Amino acid sequence: MNSSKLPQLYSYWRSSCSYRVRIVLNLKEIDYNTVPIDIFKGGGEQFSDNYRQINPMKKVPALVIDGHTIVESLNIMQYLEETRPQKSLMPLDVLKRAKVREICEMIQSGIQPLQNVGVVSRFENFVKENQESIKLEWAQYWIIQGFTALNEVLTASAGKYCVGDDITLADCCLIPQVYNARKFKVDMQQFPNLSRVATHLENHPAFYAAHPSNQPDCPQEFKTHKI
Amino acid sequence: MNSSKLPQLYSYWRSSCSYRVRIVLNLKEIDYNTVPIDIFKGGGEQFSDNYRQINPMKKVPALVIDGHTIVESLNIMQYLEETRPQKSLMPLDVLKRAKVREICEMIQSGIQPLQNVGVVSRFENFVKENQESIKLEWAQYWIIQGFTALNEVLTASAGKYCVGDDITLADCCLIPQVYNARKFKVDMQQFPNLSRVATHLENHPAFYAAHPSNQPDCPQEFKTHKI
Repeated sequence: MNSSKLPQLYSYWRSSCSYRVRIVLNLKEIDYNTVPIDIFKGGGEQFSDNYRQINPMKKVPALVIDGHTIVESLNIMQYLEETRPQKSLMPLDVLKRAKVREICEMIQSGIQPLQNVGVVSRFENFVKENQESIKLEWAQYWIIQGFTALNEVLTASAGKYCVGDDITLADCCLIPQVYNARKFKVDMQQFPNLSRVATHLENHPAFYAAHPSNQPDCPQEFKTHKI
Repeated sequence: MNSSKLPQLYSYWRSSCSYRVRIVLNLKEIDYNTVPIDIFKGGGEQFSDNYRQINPMKKVPALVIDGHTIVESLNIMQYLEETRPQKSLMPLDVLKRAKVREICEMIQSGIQPLQNVGVVSRFENFVKENQESIKLEWAQYWIIQGFTALNEVLTASAGKYCVGDDITLADCCLIPQVYNARKFKVDMQQFPNLSRVATHLENHPAFYAAHPSNQPDCPQEFKTHKI
């Protein structure tokens, strides 16, 4: 396929929501081009008039595919699942499907929004002293709350992966959130079920290729991929 | 049906995530019993050991149905859509489905988590002065950011409702968020598309019956239903 016709992923290397979508694209073996959006440069390229036309929420990722622009990461993942059912990432059983969506939602609504760059930066504005340590405390709190619950859920649901022994959308949400947890210095040993699943996933080629350190817009000093 | 066999919705009258699920149950004409969880009483009944067994995330809502407990509001809504396809709340067209999910996700991940009771209370702990006005500023900021984007999305997607002329899951997320916006004194006139859709929905019997003021656990002084 002519590379100009490939799907275009507007992505930032370290954005966990971009990372989720990259994993799904890789698992489904969909070739795509990355359009890097630097969420820090000049106050954030996602706030430009051009990008606002792509996503009024002024967030990455956005995927241009099939002649349309799809935004909101879980929506993109579900769109890919509906339109590219090869290498399915959703179980057929209705209760297992609910479990996958439950885990995705715990991360996507209960953890990630509270510790993303935009929210933590805004939070910082309200803190008068010890900004760095209080920012860390805020982010860690929400990750630990969410991961404690998730670790409990996995006791019943997990096999090799989050729900049984097949990779699902839940796993595609989990690994980027684990990356964020490490960035915020959360001790992952408190979450044994979650760590065990993560270990199985992180060396999978589709997950490895989607890792922030392996993205074209990753600065040289972060290129050493440490899982 | 014996009322003890009805689905049980663990719900708090003013929780917008409980409100979403109530709307879907009503639209699909599924009888259910409400089990009130008071998220303020004694520090919050959702933190009790009993409730933690139901939902490790220690949040409402949770729905006991078909012999299982389903948690996370959008997941519950999607589970009901999959298992009770009558009065469908998802379009058949794949792009319209993506638009419905996009709007749900804008609210469920981009707005609601940042202004819910748990997050605003925790935020308050970090603010040393003018707590009430700063809490309001924080909540309003995220609602206005999200509603500005949503109003723009609706320019293209809305008919009578959020996506075309049929009620979808997007509408079931919208109305509870509009309720929260009013609670936080956001001027809705800045969002004309969104206000127009809300006006069509708010008098619908399924939405009216799901309104916080019409719940069994609503205190007497809030029973006067003002839309």
